[in-house]
Amino acid sequence: VKDLLPRGTKVIDLSADYRLNDAAEYQNWYGVEHPDAGRMAQTVYGLPELYRDRIKSAQLVANPGCYPTSAILALAPLLKAAAISPEGIIIDSKSGVSGAGREPKPHLHFPECNESVSAYGVGSHRHMPEIDQVLSDVAKSDVRVVFTPHLIPMDRGILTTCYAVPTVGRDDNSLLTILQDFYANEPFVRVSSALPATKHVAGTNFCDITARTVRGRVVVISAIDNLVKGASGSAVQNFNLMHGLPETAGLL
Amino acid sequence: VKDLLPRGTKVIDLSADYRLNDAAEYQNWYGVEHPDAGRMAQTVYGLPELYRDRIKSAQLVANPGCYPTSAILALAPLLKAAAISPEGIIIDSKSGVSGAGREPKPHLHFPECNESVSAYGVGSHRHMPEIDQVLSDVAKSDVRVVFTPHLIPMDRGILTTCYAVPTVGRDDNSLLTILQDFYANEPFVRVSSALPATKHVAGTNFCDITARTVRGRVVVISAIDNLVKGASGSAVQNFNLMHGLPETAGLL
Amino acid sequence: VKDLLPRGTKVIDLSADYRLNDAAEYQNWYGVEHPDAGRMAQTVYGLPELYRDRIKSAQLVANPGCYPTSAILALAPLLKAAAISPEGIIIDSKSGVSGAGREPKPHLHFPECNESVSAYGVGSHRHMPEIDQVLSDVAKSDVRVVFTPHLIPMDRGILTTCYAVPTVGRDDNSLLTILQDFYANEPFVRVSSALPATKHVAGTNFCDITARTVRGRVVVISAIDNLVKGASGSAVQNFNLMHGLPETAGLL
Amino acid sequence: VKDLLPRGTKVIDLSADYRLNDAAEYQNWYGVEHPDAGRMAQTVYGLPELYRDRIKSAQLVANPGCYPTSAILALAPLLKAAAISPEGIIIDSKSGVSGAGREPKPHLHFPECNESVSAYGVGSHRHMPEIDQVLSDVAKSDVRVVFTPHLIPMDRGILTTCYAVPTVGRDDNSLLTILQDFYANEPFVRVSSALPATKHVAGTNFCDITARTVRGRVVVISAIDNLVKGASGSAVQNFNLMHGLPETAGLL
Repeated sequence: VKDLLPRGTKVIDLSADYRLNDAAEYQNWYGVEHPDAGRMAQTVYGLPELYRDRIKSAQLVANPGCYPTSAILALAPLLKAAAISPEGIIIDSKSGVSGAGREPKPHLHFPECNESVSAYGVGSHRHMPEIDQVLSDVAKSDVRVVFTPHLIPMDRGILTTCYAVPTVGRDDNSLLTILQDFYANEPFVRVSSALPATKHVAGTNFCDITARTVRGRVVVISAIDNLVKGASGSAVQNFNLMHGLPETAGLL
Repeated sequence: VKDLLPRGTKVIDLSADYRLNDAAEYQNWYGVEHPDAGRMAQTVYGLPELYRDRIKSAQLVANPGCYPTSAILALAPLLKAAAISPEGIIIDSKSGVSGAGREPKPHLHFPECNESVSAYGVGSHRHMPEIDQVLSDVAKSDVRVVFTPHLIPMDRGILTTCYAVPTVGRDDNSLLTILQDFYANEPFVRVSSALPATKHVAGTNFCDITARTVRGRVVVISAIDNLVKGASGSAVQNFNLMHGLPETAGLL
Repeated sequence: VKDLLPRGTKVIDLSADYRLNDAAEYQNWYGVEHPDAGRMAQTVYGLPELYRDRIKSAQLVANPGCYPTSAILALAPLLKAAAISPEGIIIDSKSGVSGAGREPKPHLHFPECNESVSAYGVGSHRHMPEIDQVLSDVAKSDVRVVFTPHLIPMDRGILTTCYAVPTVGRDDNSLLTILQDFYANEPFVRVSSALPATKHVAGTNFCDITARTVRGRVVVISAIDNLVKGASGSAVQNFNLMHGLPETAGLL
Repeated sequence: VKDLLPRGTKVIDLSADYRLNDAAEYQNWYGVEHPDAGRMAQTVYGLPELYRDRIKSAQLVANPGCYPTSAILALAPLLKAAAISPEGIIIDSKSGVSGAGREPKPHLHFPECNESVSAYGVGSHRHMPEIDQVLSDVAKSDVRVVFTPHLIPMDRGILTTCYAVPTVGRDDNSLLTILQDFYANEPFVRVSSALPATKHVAGTNFCDITARTVRGRVVVISAIDNLVKGASGSAVQNFNLMHGLPETAGLL
């Protein structure tokens, strides 16, 4: 990045290096001093549904993490509408194994993770501060989520189940209306009263979202393919925006 | 049951018929009038870790549901110790497909549910009132949980992730100590600081449990095999207790 | 078909009705009299790699079965070159569960077929006469294969391992050369010395093929996605040919 | 082994070191000189169904490989009865991923091997000479099989489909009778006209076998759990025999 930007090259960074905008927070979660701290605050977070205009004119875009994409798309509209409290948000995510990367490791060896489900990184996953930062920006107040990722025996897909406290009594329809209005013009977000499944978005750039109230609590559920909307698909979408191409070019 | 009990036969009922002790609640969730309402209140809920003495002398035991077993074993010790609030409890469960029964259905057809994860029965699953009832009995106050089950592409196993608000500031050790003390003499519950995985309990009657604090919230995670501790294994354990056999006979 | 053809409509029949060209053989394998026997012999078998010119001018094309596509593409070039004997051919196929259709059945219920492999239809699968017929046409002599399909716990894909007796001593290179020459201009067949895997062709219209000699026997292995090259992809390819479109239009 | 045997210790060797009885063959397949060649010929091959009496009095038993167990149990009775020719035998095996060992490797990484089937070690798998040796001993003539293993996306289990040429015309019943007679007193081999499935033997020491004729060719299919009858279960069975314990002790 330090070499490319001065040459005028536009960069979409798939790593986590420029997602956080605070150097101390970065050092706290990643264990090393940031080598380019001066650029952190001005980097655009590459989630088109929230930052489309800034992405269009950005030279450096930080491509979002897979879990944050699924959680932020589920919660941002409700926080922005002040329909849910910024406090007490719980995010319970379930991810296919490709989310853990290509390097063979004992816990990703087929006979170890097949036919099993488990939580990992409880309270320590690096996507937690990334979710905090973006949701705080949307809510215009400090958001600190409880985030628990789980490993699921499948190749791809993330299902994220979010729990939040509504600011006033809510029915299902009012929640869905807020989500539908927010995403009315989005090519890759589908809001519905139906419960999403990761298989319905596999191989696509779609994010499917629904919301319900259960005993006075708001439950929002989203599904993405972590390899597309949660990674490369999002990068292509950002590329299209940064280069003035049709936003959906090359995407299913 | 109506025929067997007058003959003196001891009955362990694997169905849900005698789990709830309130006829109106039963009718509300199951849609039919209970045909033997008079026996509901006196039936023993067959979870040995909570009701061992009553099971020993019972003639009719209601074998618990699979989700309730995983959720109640995780939460009961902390509620009993008043370490967590009875309000605001969230239970996010992940179950293998055998939990949905043997009957072939479209959404359980291999190519439909394989390589996918989804929530179902959000706010409407019949195990919710069962969990409420037992946790309320333990907490000696009204507990109404938010329970969300999910379908996972594997044969067997339930992982339940519970979120609760602590009554006072808690560290991980104090939570584990409460759980370890409560289950100190239990043959089939293993408390550990390690994160449980359903594969570690597959084919056994064990329930593995851990607890952590994350940003002031309590996270308790349990794993069982729904086909053993969540069903037939529990029934065998109850049978052993009702007939004065060693409690672990015939169980792995 | 009987209604559409007289109107001049071009038909690609995805069913098995017009794949066999002999009415008695049809009745023998399908258990019913063919309702349109007169059209059987003149229907074109829709495998472009063998019958491209006839498909281009056909009004009725019988789309091949998934197993036959994988077996015929593996064996036809070697039979045509008389590199293998038409006698003693063994075809051992492994298919994902989607090959068995969408209807929920007990043996396709997730907990029944997951984590298991088994043979089925041994000696009685209806794709056996279809393979015979096409390979006999290619070999210009009577071919009667031994075909054994197996059910594999995955969504999609067929791997077919064929065993044949070479007519003269053969090394791996001479086998690969015959295959490479035969498919030199084919857009969807890839011949290589590498062993194919169904995952490498998933979601695509490709058929990957390799061949080896083992102890004087020829082993030919092919991989397709049964839902694409083994079904709808093949139909699209035929559609393109029948309508003068680029053969690869709409296909990955 | 060189240290233990002189002390009088009985040894069941789970490795492949003493399975072959010819030092040159060992060096050919394993690429190193055998360090204890003098003991090779006298070591007993630990398949109780063939060598029970020798195992009982052996001090050193070579525990069989998983593939050889499944193939030899399927073919030995028919070779011994001279019902099939020792020439032209084809063995097509399908194994779960645990058969490839515990070490994480790229091709065993969950997202690599899940949802895929492929052949490997075609013509070069080290179990091939082991199968040859034992079947040659049974047939009292030189047997050289064509053996093709395949990797299946499941934890455990081997299904082996064998193809052989009958010596005289055979019907299914006569094949089954030979198998049933051979295994009449065996505690862990079940012969049936039903097609075996690996799930039916998972977690057990059973080997299920059937045989059919298809177009004049004999098809024999066997299923084992590679982690039990194909490894540790077989070792326990041998241990029981070597120590005069009931042969089924400790085995399901």
